[in-house]
Amino acid sequence: MLYPPVVLNKKGLQTYLQRHLWFTQKEIKDFKKTSEKIAPGDLVTILSEENHFLGIGYFNPQSFYCLKLLSREEQKIDEKFFLEAFTKALKLRKSFYPGEGCFRLVFSEGDFIPGLIVDIFEKVVVVQIHTLGMERLVDFVIEALKVLFTPQAIVLKNDHTKRQEEGLPLYTKVVYGNVEDPILVTMDGIKFLVPVITGQKTGFFLDQRENRRAIARFSKGLQVIDGFSYIGGFGFYCLKSGADRVFFIDRSANALLLVEEIAKINHWKEKVITLQGDVFHILKNPPKVDMIILDPPAFIKSHKHVLEGEKKYETLYFLGLKALERGFFFGFSCSHFLKFERLLNFIKTSLKRLQVDGKIIFKGIQAKDHPINPFVEETFYLKGVGLYIEK
Amino acid sequence: MLYPPVVLNKKGLQTYLQRHLWFTQKEIKDFKKTSEKIAPGDLVTILSEENHFLGIGYFNPQSFYCLKLLSREEQKIDEKFFLEAFTKALKLRKSFYPGEGCFRLVFSEGDFIPGLIVDIFEKVVVVQIHTLGMERLVDFVIEALKVLFTPQAIVLKNDHTKRQEEGLPLYTKVVYGNVEDPILVTMDGIKFLVPVITGQKTGFFLDQRENRRAIARFSKGLQVIDGFSYIGGFGFYCLKSGADRVFFIDRSANALLLVEEIAKINHWKEKVITLQGDVFHILKNPPKVDMIILDPPAFIKSHKHVLEGEKKYETLYFLGLKALERGFFFGFSCSHFLKFERLLNFIKTSLKRLQVDGKIIFKGIQAKDHPINPFVEETFYLKGVGLYIEK
Repeated sequence: MLYPPVVLNKKGLQTYLQRHLWFTQKEIKDFKKTSEKIAPGDLVTILSEENHFLGIGYFNPQSFYCLKLLSREEQKIDEKFFLEAFTKALKLRKSFYPGEGCFRLVFSEGDFIPGLIVDIFEKVVVVQIHTLGMERLVDFVIEALKVLFTPQAIVLKNDHTKRQEEGLPLYTKVVYGNVEDPILVTMDGIKFLVPVITGQKTGFFLDQRENRRAIARFSKGLQVIDGFSYIGGFGFYCLKSGADRVFFIDRSANALLLVEEIAKINHWKEKVITLQGDVFHILKNPPKVDMIILDPPAFIKSHKHVLEGEKKYETLYFLGLKALERGFFFGFSCSHFLKFERLLNFIKTSLKRLQVDGKIIFKGIQAKDHPINPFVEETFYLKGVGLYIEK
Repeated sequence: MLYPPVVLNKKGLQTYLQRHLWFTQKEIKDFKKTSEKIAPGDLVTILSEENHFLGIGYFNPQSFYCLKLLSREEQKIDEKFFLEAFTKALKLRKSFYPGEGCFRLVFSEGDFIPGLIVDIFEKVVVVQIHTLGMERLVDFVIEALKVLFTPQAIVLKNDHTKRQEEGLPLYTKVVYGNVEDPILVTMDGIKFLVPVITGQKTGFFLDQRENRRAIARFSKGLQVIDGFSYIGGFGFYCLKSGADRVFFIDRSANALLLVEEIAKINHWKEKVITLQGDVFHILKNPPKVDMIILDPPAFIKSHKHVLEGEKKYETLYFLGLKALERGFFFGFSCSHFLKFERLLNFIKTSLKRLQVDGKIIFKGIQAKDHPINPFVEETFYLKGVGLYIEK
């Protein structure tokens, strides 16, 4: 046996056969004894009660999901394991986005590697680790990334608060090479400055790529609001597609400084207006535009905050639809906890309150380099609806 | 008052304020008396019990939804009404599909014109009418289409069995100009022969345009099965994108004859294989391919057939996933009655039975020239899920 054993009970075996990747204490036979024998974060061999091999995973008794599956085959989890997984993932991404140098290489459970996120920004690799088990494997991850990409730099952007649940510290660190923040990259022909050290998440939200492409196609000749713009993904895709003018609205002055910089290097300075402030507030007295895109941060971060968060989405969509005389409205949510149906309901409620008709002409999900694992519903988080409105 | 009055009761007013467009007998005040006074199919003025004007609609007491709303404004329903509605709809379609000559101009309730479908195939217009009320307005429709498009021909493709519920005969008729069936048109740079007289529905399924575009992008260098191909929409988009070979499978020998013709005129003859027969049967011993697209006809045509139809979808998706060693699977449903969640469930069940992992990399809906009316859920009918499979 490669690693110390963890035995699933009947309930755990069911979960395993349901092809989920996470297991709780209640799904493990003799959990207490097991957790005394295994150090937090260790690799383990997963067995059935009948002693059949089921897989390899990592174990952290302090975490609610104390066991996570890494492989259904009996294999060492080492540099070779990651190199093979990354090679496969890279092949798929290259078929998704031929010619593109920026993409998500690994989307944790969506790529069957729990706890690991890897974003590639041309020569800079940004890694996010969410679990103790994965943190213990970080050297293998880094070595495999070096071999596959010969990057200029690898950044560990380990500042996600989720890590605290696993007892992990929050930090950002360049673990290999050098990086000058922000870095200059090109996506879909647009130059972006991505703050891989000081930015949100890994520096850029790659998960909106297809939605940006789709929405930009509508925007030719139009005036656009890019609400919660961050460094301007949606807005710049629109400008690339011939939008007349884009209002970038964000709370972060730093993000808007980057918007201005990006506008300059793409020669769209005169088409860009930045508005620093609260989107909710600005939408109450908005500039007149033909298209409004609202892509807020997650308002619902846990089960406990569903009601309160939903209220925020509802208010936001209402303000957006109200601000629009005629044209396109796009509302997004990156809260896994907000179901598509609820999002749509809030839009319906707004249309009724405003007594206007809307035609739904778009439903979008996260980009395909953020694959959804059909058995881990948390991996489906990004949703968006687009309407055409004529008052 | 422009037209004889129909008065909504409290329940009907609720429906009206909910922005639905359909009303049942139970939502009309003094339904019996009203239906004695109004001839089936007549235009009516819709009023509240307090005698407030609510809208204009048409009335057919023999139909379950006996009243359908055409306008919330007090206006004559005549050639001018349709000309204005079509002009608006055309403007939107041109912004959706610049440079394209084939699109759906009117998608009934999705465009707030119940009972009317209009597809434009360059110089040929195909009209489908589903209700008696709309059939009575057909001359206005035709005149407006003539003014707007100066078409070579207008075809009334009134052979949908839904018409029988309204007591309407089934027929196909060229009501203006001349047409040689099939007609040659170009969509997204591909030449198609569309059987506007003898084909299914209006001759071509325009509702899959965005999904065809999206899926084609995955297909470069691949071998593909286009199951339930009809005249080959998906397969030809894949060939245009560089697919190596496409197997078109359909029950209809006539459809496959057109596939062969279309292959010839696009110079893809050597890349096309047609297989006439039952897709379920052929998938049991399938050619080895890298991509399988299954876009079956509606297996669920009414509430009564949900269970039986769902079983068929489940079996089909299972066979498709089983047939694939590694690569892309796309499963569609055009049954309004099959919910997205159910479709996904069938795919999950299949993955579990086959004990393979799949990454969801695509969710698709109907094309945007088939807008969804958020208040008429029947207008949301087309769904698809795409997975990447590695066994």
